[in-house]
Amino acid sequence: MPTISITTDFGSKDGFVGTLKGVIWSICPGAQIADISHNISPQNIQEGAFALWRAYSFFPSGTVHLAVVDPGVGTKRRPIAARIGGHTFVGPDNGIFTPMFEDAEKYGLTMEIAHLANQKYWLHNVSHTFHGRDIFAPVAAHIANGVSLSDLGPALRDPVRISMPKPVKTAKGWRAHITVVDIYGNCTTNLPADAVARTKNVTFFVGGHEVHGLVQSYGNKKPGDLVALVDSEDCVEIAVVNGSAAKKLGVKIGDVVEVILKSKVE
Amino acid sequence: MPTISITTDFGSKDGFVGTLKGVIWSICPGAQIADISHNISPQNIQEGAFALWRAYSFFPSGTVHLAVVDPGVGTKRRPIAARIGGHTFVGPDNGIFTPMFEDAEKYGLTMEIAHLANQKYWLHNVSHTFHGRDIFAPVAAHIANGVSLSDLGPALRDPVRISMPKPVKTAKGWRAHITVVDIYGNCTTNLPADAVARTKNVTFFVGGHEVHGLVQSYGNKKPGDLVALVDSEDCVEIAVVNGSAAKKLGVKIGDVVEVILKSKVE
Amino acid sequence: MPTISITTDFGSKDGFVGTLKGVIWSICPGAQIADISHNISPQNIQEGAFALWRAYSFFPSGTVHLAVVDPGVGTKRRPIAARIGGHTFVGPDNGIFTPMFEDAEKYGLTMEIAHLANQKYWLHNVSHTFHGRDIFAPVAAHIANGVSLSDLGPALRDPVRISMPKPVKTAKGWRAHITVVDIYGNCTTNLPADAVARTKNVTFFVGGHEVHGLVQSYGNKKPGDLVALVDSEDCVEIAVVNGSAAKKLGVKIGDVVEVILKSKVE
Repeated sequence: MPTISITTDFGSKDGFVGTLKGVIWSICPGAQIADISHNISPQNIQEGAFALWRAYSFFPSGTVHLAVVDPGVGTKRRPIAARIGGHTFVGPDNGIFTPMFEDAEKYGLTMEIAHLANQKYWLHNVSHTFHGRDIFAPVAAHIANGVSLSDLGPALRDPVRISMPKPVKTAKGWRAHITVVDIYGNCTTNLPADAVARTKNVTFFVGGHEVHGLVQSYGNKKPGDLVALVDSEDCVEIAVVNGSAAKKLGVKIGDVVEVILKSKVE
Repeated sequence: MPTISITTDFGSKDGFVGTLKGVIWSICPGAQIADISHNISPQNIQEGAFALWRAYSFFPSGTVHLAVVDPGVGTKRRPIAARIGGHTFVGPDNGIFTPMFEDAEKYGLTMEIAHLANQKYWLHNVSHTFHGRDIFAPVAAHIANGVSLSDLGPALRDPVRISMPKPVKTAKGWRAHITVVDIYGNCTTNLPADAVARTKNVTFFVGGHEVHGLVQSYGNKKPGDLVALVDSEDCVEIAVVNGSAAKKLGVKIGDVVEVILKSKVE
Repeated sequence: MPTISITTDFGSKDGFVGTLKGVIWSICPGAQIADISHNISPQNIQEGAFALWRAYSFFPSGTVHLAVVDPGVGTKRRPIAARIGGHTFVGPDNGIFTPMFEDAEKYGLTMEIAHLANQKYWLHNVSHTFHGRDIFAPVAAHIANGVSLSDLGPALRDPVRISMPKPVKTAKGWRAHITVVDIYGNCTTNLPADAVARTKNVTFFVGGHEVHGLVQSYGNKKPGDLVALVDSEDCVEIAVVNGSAAKKLGVKIGDVVEVILKSKVE
């Protein structure tokens, strides 16, 4: 059964997402559609990229992932479709698929990208403000129907990438960054768990607080305690048990977490 | 495949919408259901009408559109189903379908309306507070199953209409109104694009600011710039590039936009 | 067609719910999935229990209800599946299914509970922070595929229950409690309608206000009036017509409603 996911900054009030589904079902009746997020902060490409990246690999092979965070709508930024391994991504060429391109390189996945120039697969009337409806949703539905990328437009080899923050090695450990603050206020970082897995002598400095060591899960400490642990994407996360680390620490996405590793006792 | 859309003011916390889907699938297993909006302001019939109107025509012919913004639940206001062209609308007779009735007249579409009096198609126990669950969702599911409108109740020829704001011709141009403020703060008006399409000498006065001319899309100006452009429904929209026009202008739905057309140079 | 409902405190921004759907469709392609609520207050088990309880019985027999409000994730709290009548519930053993257990006893429904110990039905890699994705969603999908509870793990007879507030008989009537405050600000109580149905001489004292008698529906009084009525679950509800009773009364979930019954005229 054709499966499509949707990630946007459209919110849930105005009916934009419902419109996308109407367009999809008009072209690919029976497609099953999952919302990933429609509450990406307006025009925040990086936030959309992270939300989609954390979810996409849990979808069945063959899924089409439609992502529309599109500050450049109506300008010359290109519409693209990128097939990476068994997943196909459709949206504006503004860097929103950067972490998926990085996955392709990291895991040696096949990658094929098309510039969506063939207007045959768009709606007949294309507005200057809603390409999600007029270009991206119809193309995603046609791909779900089996249209090949080469039919959608010419190959494209230089997709736009955004700079994704990477942890930096320091004399004493790592300088990491908060990449996601989730609904609970948990602060995920870009530090892979294996960077700190070998030692228990690790300290995290963040928002004027320090956290020693890693716990296995939230429930291993008391409500209100500030803890570090390995999150569900195998990165280090700073959390408050049954509370909000973001609020307690006063931190936000992009803020630095200094990581001090000690191989000897202090 | 039977397709149903849902528009309500039920919000997303209490589980009311999930209940509607349970009812629908109990009667019409396999119906594919799209949420248009559940964040219509409580009891705001006009807002629900606009959200549904902007989305419905992008759904496949045959779709059943369930709309429940229903301040009169439990009173004598009538439950209705209206078939307009290939789309069928189910909900309270309180004017929420007014723009679709106007479309029917504007485009010469067939229109058939039933007063949903036949309790055979309702749930067995009908509460006084949740007709979405007890009357409208079951009826929508039965229609998706192929039940005819004439089986659902007697024909009805005088559906309630609400007053939808219309632009007024003035000596110098138009007096238009803001009809939708979307999640980005873009302010859509009821002024059709063709009312200003022939001239570049147009000025919009709104919220103490003035905007000269139309741009093609947001990306044609700098972030923060106040612009006017044609929106995805072919109406004039006032926007701030990558920002909120509603916030910058301090305006809300219903506020006036004075439009001055000049055929000569100033 | 396999039907799954989902109730969580995951919110709608981070993409967690989309991930659950990806996992489900990877195991049970074609399952139709309804969101009940993802805006349960973080870690609020009772709120999740009420939301699911109000919705579940409207789903088709055979539905699998996935519920993840899980402050104990990653600790020794057990993952469970409970089949009650025709409905199967999957989630943490923390009391979230208490009202369904009470329904089983009240209506004499069959009940079978499994401790989900068989890792064969989990994802291969299980995190310590996201069992919704790694254990509960895969198990729900396998159940939707027809896997029996006995295959999922050993029978369990002592599920955790939370204390659900019950109305107390008093000398003059009842002491009831507010159990749900919905999006409109309507305050539902735990007082069954039949406790007050025989008399019109009933007065409700709540939040420093008093309400005399019951009305049939909101529309029977003027906008702004404080009323009591029977809600869609046959419990007494305190409401303000086209307004918010919670705001007017300054009350919240758990607050007391004193109910005075008078068999004679005052």
